[in-house]
Amino acid sequence: MPEIGITVPGTPETGYSIVIGSGILPSTWAKIEAAHAGFNRFIVTDEHVVAAGHLDALLGGRLAPCYVIQPAGEISKTIDTAVAIVETMEKACLGRDTVVVALGGGTVGDIAGFAAAIFKRGVPVVQIPTTTLAQADSAIGGKTGVDSSVSKNAFGAFWHPAAVYLDVATVQTLDDRQYRSGLVESVKHGLIADAEYFEFIETHLDSLLSRDLGTLETLAEYNCRIKGAIVAEDPLERNKRRILNYGHTIGHAVEAASGYELFHGEAIAIGIVAVGRIEAELGLAQPDRLDRVHAVLQRLCVPTTLPTNLTLAALLDLLRHDKKSVDRWPRFVLLDRLGHIHCESGEYAVQVGREVVVEALGRLR
Amino acid sequence: MPEIGITVPGTPETGYSIVIGSGILPSTWAKIEAAHAGFNRFIVTDEHVVAAGHLDALLGGRLAPCYVIQPAGEISKTIDTAVAIVETMEKACLGRDTVVVALGGGTVGDIAGFAAAIFKRGVPVVQIPTTTLAQADSAIGGKTGVDSSVSKNAFGAFWHPAAVYLDVATVQTLDDRQYRSGLVESVKHGLIADAEYFEFIETHLDSLLSRDLGTLETLAEYNCRIKGAIVAEDPLERNKRRILNYGHTIGHAVEAASGYELFHGEAIAIGIVAVGRIEAELGLAQPDRLDRVHAVLQRLCVPTTLPTNLTLAALLDLLRHDKKSVDRWPRFVLLDRLGHIHCESGEYAVQVGREVVVEALGRLR
Repeated sequence: MPEIGITVPGTPETGYSIVIGSGILPSTWAKIEAAHAGFNRFIVTDEHVVAAGHLDALLGGRLAPCYVIQPAGEISKTIDTAVAIVETMEKACLGRDTVVVALGGGTVGDIAGFAAAIFKRGVPVVQIPTTTLAQADSAIGGKTGVDSSVSKNAFGAFWHPAAVYLDVATVQTLDDRQYRSGLVESVKHGLIADAEYFEFIETHLDSLLSRDLGTLETLAEYNCRIKGAIVAEDPLERNKRRILNYGHTIGHAVEAASGYELFHGEAIAIGIVAVGRIEAELGLAQPDRLDRVHAVLQRLCVPTTLPTNLTLAALLDLLRHDKKSVDRWPRFVLLDRLGHIHCESGEYAVQVGREVVVEALGRLR
Repeated sequence: MPEIGITVPGTPETGYSIVIGSGILPSTWAKIEAAHAGFNRFIVTDEHVVAAGHLDALLGGRLAPCYVIQPAGEISKTIDTAVAIVETMEKACLGRDTVVVALGGGTVGDIAGFAAAIFKRGVPVVQIPTTTLAQADSAIGGKTGVDSSVSKNAFGAFWHPAAVYLDVATVQTLDDRQYRSGLVESVKHGLIADAEYFEFIETHLDSLLSRDLGTLETLAEYNCRIKGAIVAEDPLERNKRRILNYGHTIGHAVEAASGYELFHGEAIAIGIVAVGRIEAELGLAQPDRLDRVHAVLQRLCVPTTLPTNLTLAALLDLLRHDKKSVDRWPRFVLLDRLGHIHCESGEYAVQVGREVVVEALGRLR
């Protein structure tokens, strides 16, 4: 099975490995034990992952202390959950010689990674992503975080995993909507970094939608290599890493405006089409690029127009409050050709006039 | 004024500077503004520091958003305070372009450093220590942390300051007990790393106790150079950095047993004498070393015997639960001569038989 080395400059450990395979979950526990000899293990997962049978598959009858997040999902991604996890570890008499094992989707990985980052000044975390979203994106790159009572991801840390075990077979248990929306980040990787990868997705949509394991393994390899290389170049998101936010500026606003009724990948699909319209307004679009993107997203059955109950005024107000805004207006990541980000004076997130954004959003109904 | 460069391998910034002087607080704010141009500033301090006039001296009539920890002291060093600080920053619309300024003693530095470490995946923190303890020890080295409802320092991060401004004049406002107990960590630095420094303290006790500013500046330089070098060699406390825990194994147990009635430095004084007795039992003591240590600590008016209400059984039980225990018994950091740590097979924290510890503690009444 393929193993991809990820480099992380400016950290004590300098890197980690991602193991990719199909049906590897039952053999993963022994690998974690071997890689962290002398360490205790503590699992963080959620009720959906347990119900899907992944915890049983990982443990294979072994016993291990565990925190099961209930209810699953964004609603539990709070500082209170992170505190509860740390206090559960303390009550289990666990110390610094503990490795946290995050088994689940993006929410589980974010919460467990953050808890590992702050438990007794930091213990290793092993990420075992079980959703298309987490496998393509959140399990790689070291971003962790939880929400406060005031805003999303108010608390967080860059805390790179000690290892990632990526079993593509685990996504078989996802429902269709979650499965397909999680593929949008893979489409994004092709768009921002690798035209050949985008073409691979275009030509393998049937086998992707039928969850063919071989296709999913190839997808995972592309995703890990692309994201790994970008993170290695700019681990703290000072410039280059911002290209991973392609489609996310408008996407995050749409996601928030929906009250998180839209899944992350669904909101990003809308954001990708919106930024495609901006590129067209700015003359950056190749003739058929937006059509091709649109066609792929439609096959994934994700939305590509703004929700009808979202007014333009509300969306613009959210954009003004974007956490990366400068002078109350966000910068945008744009393509200048398929697989290549538009760069101005060395900056990957660039200024776009308000009227251009308004015009582009107007075409997104 | 002297400026000491501190190296921190394995971090993105790779190092920071400590500026040492007397009466530099009023000129420090402008230096922070210059060093972090384009950043917002957020101050964390406590009610004692405000009452002592240090916040006014720092701001000199300027306005800045601020969180004042109330009540001051260990009781507020909790995850709840760290969460409240982050939420105050959010409500003040502060983002990642914010530098946290920690003005106060060890508790303020620990809490503010931790809040900075977890606010939106980490923002810079500038440490301005105002106590003998924080100036000698806690403001340097990047250890931050807060307590959970279960135990001390359950939450924490290694989060090195962007800069340290060390104004020795600020300790003039401390009461005698706090001033003197904070000097114990300076004595420890001499013992573990620099016999000449220990002799400097021995011969300057009068001017130290009269809070002579020139002597305090020299003391600060010794402390920063010694601790800085040790942290640079082993930032994550995997081996060498453990020598900074000299006197802390028994000291922490005594501090906890007192319900934190004993100040940290007072408990460490007892721990230093206790470990001196262990060295004597093991034949590691030079003839007069323990007498000299004892004499210095007595001039500082810190305790050097076990509290009468602390039973040997209770103390041994606490030692078994030490967070660094291996097989339910802690390792000990020992001197083999003044200014030099005893090392066995490359390890700086070594095994000591239970009976040796019991014998040594028995002599500490």
